[in-house]
This record gives sequence, C-alpha cells and structure tokens, in this order.
Amino acid sequence: MNTKKTKTKALKIALVLISFLINAPKTFAQNNDTKSQKIDVLESKIDSIISLLTLKEKVDMCHAQSKFSSKGVERLGIPEIWMSDGPHGVRAEISWDSWEYAGWTNDSITAFPALTCLAATFNPILSGEYGYNLGEEARYRKKDILLGPGVNIYRTPLNGRNFEYMGEDPFLASTMVVPYIKGVQKNGVAACVKHYALNNQELWRNEVSVEVSDRALYEIYLPAFKAAVIDGGVWSIMGAYNKFRGQYCCHNELLLNNILKKDWAFDGVVVSDWSGAHDTYESALFGLDIEMGTGTDGLGSSTANHYDNYYLATPFLKSIKSGEIDEAVVNDKVRRILRLMYRTNMSSNRPLGRVNNKEHHDIARKVAQEGIVLLKNKNNFFPVKDENITIAVIGENATRSMTAGGGSSELKPQFEISPLAGLKARYKNATIVHAMGYATGPSVYDAIIPSKLNADSLRVEAIKVAKNADIVLFFGGLNKSHLQDCEGADRKQFNLPFGQDELLNDILSVNKNVGYILMSGNAVEMPWLNQVNGVMQTWYLGSMAGQGIADVISGDVNPSGKLPFSFPVKLKDNAAHAFGESSYPGINYTQTYKEDILVGYRWHETKKIDPLYAFGYGLSYTNFNITGIKTDKKTYQPNDKIKVTCQITNTGNLDGAEVIQVYIGKPKSEVKRALKELKGFQKIHLKVGEQKNAELTIDAADLAFYDESISDWNLEKGDYKIYIGNASNSINKIININIK
Amino acid sequence: MNTKKTKTKALKIALVLISFLINAPKTFAQNNDTKSQKIDVLESKIDSIISLLTLKEKVDMCHAQSKFSSKGVERLGIPEIWMSDGPHGVRAEISWDSWEYAGWTNDSITAFPALTCLAATFNPILSGEYGYNLGEEARYRKKDILLGPGVNIYRTPLNGRNFEYMGEDPFLASTMVVPYIKGVQKNGVAACVKHYALNNQELWRNEVSVEVSDRALYEIYLPAFKAAVIDGGVWSIMGAYNKFRGQYCCHNELLLNNILKKDWAFDGVVVSDWSGAHDTYESALFGLDIEMGTGTDGLGSSTANHYDNYYLATPFLKSIKSGEIDEAVVNDKVRRILRLMYRTNMSSNRPLGRVNNKEHHDIARKVAQEGIVLLKNKNNFFPVKDENITIAVIGENATRSMTAGGGSSELKPQFEISPLAGLKARYKNATIVHAMGYATGPSVYDAIIPSKLNADSLRVEAIKVAKNADIVLFFGGLNKSHLQDCEGADRKQFNLPFGQDELLNDILSVNKNVGYILMSGNAVEMPWLNQVNGVMQTWYLGSMAGQGIADVISGDVNPSGKLPFSFPVKLKDNAAHAFGESSYPGINYTQTYKEDILVGYRWHETKKIDPLYAFGYGLSYTNFNITGIKTDKKTYQPNDKIKVTCQITNTGNLDGAEVIQVYIGKPKSEVKRALKELKGFQKIHLKVGEQKNAELTIDAADLAFYDESISDWNLEKGDYKIYIGNASNSINKIININIK
Repeated sequence: MNTKKTKTKALKIALVLISFLINAPKTFAQNNDTKSQKIDVLESKIDSIISLLTLKEKVDMCHAQSKFSSKGVERLGIPEIWMSDGPHGVRAEISWDSWEYAGWTNDSITAFPALTCLAATFNPILSGEYGYNLGEEARYRKKDILLGPGVNIYRTPLNGRNFEYMGEDPFLASTMVVPYIKGVQKNGVAACVKHYALNNQELWRNEVSVEVSDRALYEIYLPAFKAAVIDGGVWSIMGAYNKFRGQYCCHNELLLNNILKKDWAFDGVVVSDWSGAHDTYESALFGLDIEMGTGTDGLGSSTANHYDNYYLATPFLKSIKSGEIDEAVVNDKVRRILRLMYRTNMSSNRPLGRVNNKEHHDIARKVAQEGIVLLKNKNNFFPVKDENITIAVIGENATRSMTAGGGSSELKPQFEISPLAGLKARYKNATIVHAMGYATGPSVYDAIIPSKLNADSLRVEAIKVAKNADIVLFFGGLNKSHLQDCEGADRKQFNLPFGQDELLNDILSVNKNVGYILMSGNAVEMPWLNQVNGVMQTWYLGSMAGQGIADVISGDVNPSGKLPFSFPVKLKDNAAHAFGESSYPGINYTQTYKEDILVGYRWHETKKIDPLYAFGYGLSYTNFNITGIKTDKKTYQPNDKIKVTCQITNTGNLDGAEVIQVYIGKPKSEVKRALKELKGFQKIHLKVGEQKNAELTIDAADLAFYDESISDWNLEKGDYKIYIGNASNSINKIININIK
Repeated sequence: MNTKKTKTKALKIALVLISFLINAPKTFAQNNDTKSQKIDVLESKIDSIISLLTLKEKVDMCHAQSKFSSKGVERLGIPEIWMSDGPHGVRAEISWDSWEYAGWTNDSITAFPALTCLAATFNPILSGEYGYNLGEEARYRKKDILLGPGVNIYRTPLNGRNFEYMGEDPFLASTMVVPYIKGVQKNGVAACVKHYALNNQELWRNEVSVEVSDRALYEIYLPAFKAAVIDGGVWSIMGAYNKFRGQYCCHNELLLNNILKKDWAFDGVVVSDWSGAHDTYESALFGLDIEMGTGTDGLGSSTANHYDNYYLATPFLKSIKSGEIDEAVVNDKVRRILRLMYRTNMSSNRPLGRVNNKEHHDIARKVAQEGIVLLKNKNNFFPVKDENITIAVIGENATRSMTAGGGSSELKPQFEISPLAGLKARYKNATIVHAMGYATGPSVYDAIIPSKLNADSLRVEAIKVAKNADIVLFFGGLNKSHLQDCEGADRKQFNLPFGQDELLNDILSVNKNVGYILMSGNAVEMPWLNQVNGVMQTWYLGSMAGQGIADVISGDVNPSGKLPFSFPVKLKDNAAHAFGESSYPGINYTQTYKEDILVGYRWHETKKIDPLYAFGYGLSYTNFNITGIKTDKKTYQPNDKIKVTCQITNTGNLDGAEVIQVYIGKPKSEVKRALKELKGFQKIHLKVGEQKNAELTIDAADLAFYDESISDWNLEKGDYKIYIGNASNSINKIININIK
C-alpha cells in the first residue's frame, strides 16, 4: 500500500469534510422566520429519516437501479426517483435495463419547440409557461426529475447539441432559464439543469478536458447555472461528460463542491450524466449525489446485479466501511436526495399533471410563433399571400419528423404537424405542390447517404416543380440525424448537407422567387444568400411545427424572434474556430478556450468581424420606431439600479413585437472587455400605430467583471457605454454613464 | 335488419336505464350530514368532470390500455389506473402487452400466506393487519387496484384455485374479508373482491354455466361478496369467468345490475376478469365498468391498437353513437371509475406505502403461526423437541418455492424461507438430514413427470435417510404446479400426486415415527392416516414459510388454526361430488349445484357423513375447558341480539388459543335447512391456567333463510338450536331458543 498516497487522500478527505460541515446551505438562514421554521421542521424530519437508514440503504440511494430510476427505501416507504429526458418534452418509456423503448402506448406527449427556439422568443414569461406546461406532462407521466433544461453556452455552430440549449449569451440564457425551472417545479417535478459545465461540444465529450480562464468560466459559462440555482431554485443539476482542468465534471471539486454547493449554497441533488462518473473516491468526495447510466445494458436483472458495481455502489460502501470515506459523506448525499423527495414525490400536495391538452399545444405553437426568426425579406417576400398562385414546397424537411432523432431528447409526440401539412391546412386559394428535392434516409445514428440515382430523380422532379411555381419555399437545413444536430457527435461541415446548396442553385436557375426555410439548431453557411429573396430560421418546433411555420409564413402571426446566437459568414469567423485545433476540438483530448470571454457576438463586435446575422437580430413584417431613449441618471453608485427608458412605436401596418436590447461596454478597463455585453432586454407587443414606454433596469453591480486577481467580481469605477438597440449590431443610441 | 329483435333490445335498454336512474347508490343518503355533504361535493365534482369529457374519452376509460392498466384522461390530468395481482402479495411487473415479466428489479415483495391460511386463523383482527400491510406493498408499488381478496366458496377440493379463497363457509369468509378490505383501502389502494360469482372450479371456467337455486346463491355464494360491499365498503369487484344461468358473470344482469348495484347499492367499479368479457351490448348494459385482458398479446403497440377492439372500446363507442346504447350508460361507468380514483390515485392524502419491511414479515409469520392447523398428534408427536436426535426431513416440498406457480397469484418474493431452512435455523441440537424423496420438476404450466430412474434413486435415498432417523417429517402435499393447486385447471385426483402415498408407505416400513406436513390449499385423501403419528396442515405460507412452520413444529408457537373447509374421507363424501358429473364438473359446460345449500360441513352434518377432519377443527398443544355456556335469553324478537357467553380456561401446560364457534340449526322448518350453520366465532388467547369470558353476539335476523317464494329473507318463528363448540363436529353444548 502506498502510504504517502493514502495520507494525502486522508488529508484531502478531512478538508472536504470540513468544507461540508462549514458550508451548510446558507439560503435557509436568509429566508423569513415562518419559512425558515418550516425548513427546520423539514430538515429535522430528514435527519430523523437518515438516523433510521442502514449504510447500505444510504448507498443504494446514490446510484441507479435501472436506466432511469434510483432506489428509495422500500421498507420505510421512501419512494424511488424516476427521471426522464428531456428539455423539450418527456421522452417515451425506456426499458428497465436497456436503451430499447419499452413499447408502451401511454407515452406519447406534446413535443415543445427545442430550446434554441424558446431562447429566440426573448420572452421570459413564455419560458415560464413552457416550463409549467412541460412540467405538467412530466408529472402526469410520473416523473420526479425532468432532465432539463440545458444551458450550455453556444460556443461553436458545430456542436451537435446546441439545439437543446439557450444560445450564446449568458444573460439571455440566465433570464430564460429561471422561469422555465420555476414553471416545471410548480408541478412537484424537479428540473435538472444541465450539463454542468463546459459541455460545449459533443465531439470527444467523454474524454476532452476543457481549459478555460476563471474569467470566462464565471462570466460566460457559469452564469446560467448560477441563475438556475440562486434565482430559479433548481432542485437538481446534471454533471457534464467532459473534464474541466483534468477532472471529470461529474465529480469536479471546483465546480461541484466549491462553486455549486459552497458558493451558491445549492441544497439539491447532483445527478451524473449517463455514464459520466468514473471514480468512486472522486464521485464520493467531489460532489456527485446520484450516479446514473454507468453502462449495464441487460445486466441489471442478472444474479450479479451490475448496478451494484457502480462507483457509488459497492465500492462506495466498502470505502465507507473501511473508514477511507466518512459516513458523513453519504449522509450529505442522502440528505440532498430526501430534500428533493420532499419537494417532489413525498410532497403531499403536488398536482396530477396532464398531457396532450390543448393548452400545451397552444403553448408549443405560441413559442414557435414567437421564436421563428425572419432573417431576410427582400421586397416583402414574406408573408406569402393566400391567392391564386402556385407555391412549390421543396425539401425533405417539409415532411420529415423533427422529433425523431437528435439523441436523448428524441420524442414520441402524439402528433407532429409537418410544415407541408401546416401550409396545406392554411392555404385555401394557392396551389401547393411538393417535391422532396433531396433525401437523407431515416434518422438513425449513422446517416444513410442516398444513392446518386435516387438523389438525381428527386432533384429533377424538384426543378420541374419549382420551374412551374410562382413561389418556391425551400425547406432545408439540418435534420437531427447523426452529424446534423444530434447528440454524440459534432457537425463536420458548416455548410448545408445532402447537396442542398447545389440543389438550391439549380432551382434558382429556373425560379428566382425563392425563400429558404432553415430548420436547424445551429448557424449554417449561406453561399446562396444574395440570390434568395427570403430566409426564415424555424428551428425544431415539435408537435405544432407545421402550424407555427404556416402562421408566420402566411402573416397570421408577425415574426418577432431574435437570434440567440450569431451566424458567422464562415466558420473561421466564429471565435472558437479562430485559433485552430487546440481551441476546437482540442489536441490529445485537451482543449483551451482561446477566445476566452469573447464568445459569439462579443467576438464579432470586439474584433469587428461582421456576422452574416447578428445575435439579437430578427426582422418583422412591420416597422418599429424607438425614440426618447435615456437613462435616469448619468452617474451611479455601485448599489444603484440603472434605469433605461424609451418609447417604442409600431409604425407599420401589422401588429407585432420588438425586443429592446441593452448592452453595456467599458471602453477603458484594466482588463480586456467585450465591446458589448447584453445586460437587459424587453419584448414589447404593439398594435398597429401603438406606442408604449419601455423601462429596463440594470443593477450597476452587474457591470462588474470577474477579477482573477481577487477571485471575485470587480466593479470598476469610471465611464461605461450603454447601447440600446434591437440587435447586437443594430444600436439606436449609445449613452455614456459613470460609476462612482 | 331484424326489427323485432331491435325493438326487444330497445325495450330492454329502456328498462335497464330506468333501473340506473332509480337506483342511485343509497348508501350516500344513509350517512350523517357532514359526510353526506362531502359526498355531495365529490359527486358534483365528478359530474363536472364528466361534462368535460368527450364520448371517446369516456369509452377509453372503460377498457384496458395494457395488460394491467387502463387509461385516464391525459389532457385533463385524470390519472391512469394501475392494477396488480393478487390476493396474497403484489405480483412482479408484467410487460406492457404480453404476459412476460418485465424484468424489473424493484418488484420483489413480501409474500403473505395464501388466503386459506388467513381464513384458518379465524382471527379477523389479523386479517385487518394482513390487508393493511399488503395494501402498503401495493401502494409503494404504485398500484391503484389490488386484485384481491378472493372469496369464492370452497365447493370441491379439486378446485385448483381454492388456496386463494377463504374456505367453505359464508359466515367465516364474510367475517374475514371485511377487515382485509378495510386494511388494504386505508392505503388509498382499492381492493377488488373476486370472482363475482360462482367461480368455484377452474375446469371449464371460461365456458361453464352454473345453475344454482336462489337460496344457495343468497345463503352460500353471495354473503362474502355482500359483506365485502356493505360492511367492507370495497371500491371494486371482479366479475367471474364462468356463466351464471347462461349469462357470463362479467356482464350478468342479475348479479351485477340487480343484486350488486341495485340491492347492495355498490358505488364502485366492476372489473372483468382478464378476458372475461364476451359481448359489447351485455358488457355495456349489464354492469361491467372496466374490461380487462381481452387477448391482445403483442398487438397493443401496433398501428391498429387492438385494445380499441375490446367490447367496451370501439364497438361500445359505435353503439352509443348510433343511439343503440344511451350515453348515460357510459356516464355511469365513468362516474364509478372517477369515484374510485378520488378514493385512490386522485386522493391527496394517501400514504406512500412500503415494502419488505420487518412489520410485513412479522405479519406474514404471525398469520402462518395462527393459520397452521394441527390435525393429528398421536402421543404428542408434536412439538418436536430440539434435543440430540436425528430428524429426517423428506419431500420436495421441504425446499420447493411455493410462491412460484399457482397462476396469476404467483409472486417474486424478496426471499422465501423454505421449511428445511426454517428448521435448520431453529434446531441447534438435533441433526437435520434431508432427502427429496420425490421430485416433480419445475413449476410450469404442464408439470414434468420425473423419469422413473430419477424417482427411484430419490426414493432409495429417502428411505435410507428415514431409516436412520429418530423422527421423520414428511413435507408433501400439492405444489402449485399445473393440476396441483394452480389456476386454470382443477386437480384430477383427490389423493396426493407424485407417488407420495407409496413413498410414505415405504418410509413407514422402516420408521414408524412419522409426521406428515401437508402443504396444500385443498383437502387430500390420506390413506396412510392411521399409520402416521402426526399431521399438520401448513398451506402456502409465502416469504416466512420456513419460520412459521418451524415455530409451530418446535412448539415455540402453539398451533391455533382451524380448518376453513372440511376434509372428506373420500371425494364422493364431498357434496359437490355426490351427484355425479352433472353437478361436477357439469355436462356440456352446464352444471347444477345439486347439493344446493348443503356445502361443506353443512353436507357432512346434515347427511351424517363423517369427515376425515371437520370444518372448524384444529388441535392445540394445550387443553381448553369451555364451561358456563349460556344464552342471555330463551326467547327473542326478530330484532334482538342473541348473546352467547361462556368461560374458557387453558388447562394445559402451554399458552395457546382456542376458537369458540357458534352454529345454529332449525330442526323444524318449512324448508330444508342445514343441521348447523356457523353464525359466530371468537378466537381467544389464553396463558397457561388463564380463564376468560367469551361473549358472542348474533343478530336474530341472521337466523333467517332465503325464501325463494318471496325473493327475500324470511325469519321463521319457532325453536332453534344454538350449538357451541370448537369445531363443526365438536359441540360442547346445545341450547334451545325461540324466536317469537
């Protein structure tokens, strides 16, 4: 036995334990008396339960018993915990111990738009409704933890899982995630914010170690998680697959013990991503509470129950019995798990939930309507009038299911209305004709390349259909198959797959009146942009996709979505790709975020690299006039609130909504800063001719940067610029203020 | 279209509907004001839910969606109903749409003793504890309806399913079933009393039509169900497979509409046995509420969902839409289902349940201890002292799992202690040796006949082991394999299977000191009875079988069980078998219960046919003296209570318990009556030397017979005999009384 190693380990354990004891969640004490008395009663109930448990029972609560559940204590009536993917809908039932679907028929649900779309609404109230309605579905399906939302920062458009997240800006993601969580949790279902942290690419996700400055960590990658914990009061959080500074995120001392549980006083449960745990000692000591998914396919029901071989199972038990790990460690985990139970499956007054009801469909449709982003609209190509014309609908995506595929967030919706079906239902006078144009095969892990012959015949047919039409709507983009917006791998190309660019060129050669409907969760290259008349970003919209798209294309609904991430002209223009392999995807499974804090629009703005479409950008069918922009003062104290007001008027011919955005900048700083950082936004709905006052409030303290020299936030005194506009690159007014 | 047929149908429907409207459950009105106000609120809640439902949604609630669940209304948050077998433990999880086990690892439970054993305790308080503890297991397993208890009357010892029921006497079954139901339902889990009615044999259960007099129906076969409904307040009831008077019991107008729902004012849910429904019209109109199990293996998840083809699915929907069946019919079913939901899965304050806890094991053991019946004890063969002797334990049943097999009540216990293991754990000084003696193969539907060679070698070994022992304990009986106490078929022989009789003879030829431990749920022939020194009936005892048996064999616990059914000497002595094929099993799938009311001991007593062992019989290791037996009066009015008192003294050397039994008889009656009918019993625990007063109260009204001439109960005036004793054939005193 290596005594030195043992001693070091022992010392480390002692330190960790001290940190446990000192850092009992502080949020409790901050509450008012009655609430804190209630919490005291709850905590002492939990203590008394723990005193009844055997060591084995405690350890059993800390790991899976099946693909998606963990044990309770059956002899005491402590329930099991049932979990389900995912962020935009409750996944179909999975088998007990394999990834096969269980073949149930009661698990069809409402598929809500994926989270990029929700972020694009820039509407936190809608996010709250989204969360509440999704939570109702989880509750009816008897789930105790819903494995979402995802708030990993959009760093590169190649990340296969960006569609599950809320874009590139920490303020936007923070603002949108909080009401989502509160909404879900109103149902007595725990949200599980994920993937904590820095899981910003799928490529090598199980191996890659991320190196990033403390400043970028605190300013860019952690804020949405912090907001989820502190403002959202989230009851669980999922560790990420990747490593951070050489240590797996599912048992990462800095991320879980120091930041999450100590600094943020998180009193909930840390769940591993499925197979994200890799070590007993680290899992035990560095913050993991429930280990899930450590590969056991088909072994769970064998005599030697392989769930017992989990890092937090028998090896953990042995370590406690041997004294290597103190029992206080498992007690802390069980305390957290029981706390989650009292909030969910041991709560006596949670509602019953519901599924597939009209309200859920309506919310799904509303999020689609408000999240669709109109990117280009030459000569008012959109809205497309329902008159005596022929509309050619080209592209596989006009009919393809976008709830299948994508990985763990794949859904089994009760129905899914395709764009073609949505348009056909909406258009009564126009003639709608359809041609696939290209085909990609089923949405399986390895995408099937269509045969040349087949592709050619589809192409010929599409060109013929397009030629005879008055208007062409090209439904392309990605499709959630492997490498095309799907968990487990990143995209390998920035341009569109399946020969779409070539097909579009061919179509443009026979018909100039083309609008491109981009279905994706990521930015793509648009070499044909100048030749098409319209571009609309329509995400993955779930059950009500067809209606949502038809609503906006027809003009029944005026688009008001704004991009939650930047579209670079070419991949190299994206910050993550500006520094070569070492920054993305890494070398030897190590990567350094060399762009540091300059993620997304921060990079474009600061480096003066024009994006194809900017963060915060999105057109409307009407026009808005923003006037009277001012701040309440010119000089502020650090504890002040900065109030920005303006008037906004709908000067066009349609009702609509605009998003006022407030960015700040610190031109002269002791550190490098982004030219602009989003600090406030407000979505305002306006009838034709209507004027409203907008008022946005920013804490002066939020203008601080994370100062690595003091390991804390630092609010520099001096001059700041306040940018007010309707996109990161579209500023109506800049106001200079001063912090004293 | 046959108009005449249609007209008759229409008339019938009209009559049935009127009966629906007139016969709203009367129990409501009988409650006190506050309670009835609460019920009014509940009923109007239910009405308002019904007003929100589409016709399709209502119909969907009336049939299965999977093997063991039925639909709720997901858009409104009305939960699904999950059901599980069975009467003595919660069955392992079954696949969604096949009879395969689902392969879960969280579904091991406590196996409680089968219900013949519970009945043999003659202890209603224990039955309440049994129900409560079993209900806790069902609740933890998230079941809303527990498919039990079974109270079909023990008519023939060949019935493969008798072990699931409570014996041959309606009063005993009634008294025992009520606390069981209340216990289960305290957990917010509905009991489902079954199989209503006359499912008294497994042979031809899906075809046979039972003809029985009204008198036998009301006096023998219905009382336990009536008690379950009126005194137990059971929330659901399961229809039987068989027909009654030519109409299937799952949609039997007389049984369900007239008796259950009208006369007894049952306000709960009638569930079909699995595949027990056979017709849409009858299911709809004649009282079935939820149709389950109508064969769909593997089809449920196909595109054409075959659950939609259930009698109470699409055909029902069509009949309502066409006007053939009024919508009020489905409304009534849904009202009942919602009422059950408010009592179970929509109740906000049901407990969480628990599984496999010590209390459950203790109750299982206690029921075993109190239910084991000592039948013969020559020269105090039992208890077997733990001294320096060799005990030969012979027989496969000493080690065989008795929770496997038996049909739908098969269980997957967390553990099951075999008799051999129980004895080995108990006996420290004695040497215990074991030989299988005979072997029967696995407990599969078709029993495997062991090869002659194998059987011979086992036999040789057993004789050798027995020869060298001081005492032989032969663990034989039946074993829950096909034809040996198992659902789906009746026994084909009254004597013991697998060559046990021959083996026992061989053993007796080398060792006279033999005790036979009879594991069965049925009476068996005992040709060897005079040669063995002891016989103990130990039933199917579940998880704690080994301990329960060792407790009684060792004398740690003094046996106090009493037979809940008669053991005839030979099969012909049993009433059902006294009239040839037409009475059992029937001819051309029709059978007439020719023994009429003279079931079990009623037959033996009335016809003076001595049983091998009588109903109510059971020995103790101590002696009891019953003295001072008297009634409070000699003459009673019809509304009086007859009070029987006596003193009972434990005059032996061990603590123990005796069951005082009160039978009545009406020597001179206008109708034939049984010589004796059980009308009261009381189990009394007595320390050594202790004396207690016993007081049993009988309603004079309960001395009535069912008078077919007036279709009502008729309490004859005149002289009655009150028999007080400790078995149906062991009467200490007869008292004559008179009803004025």
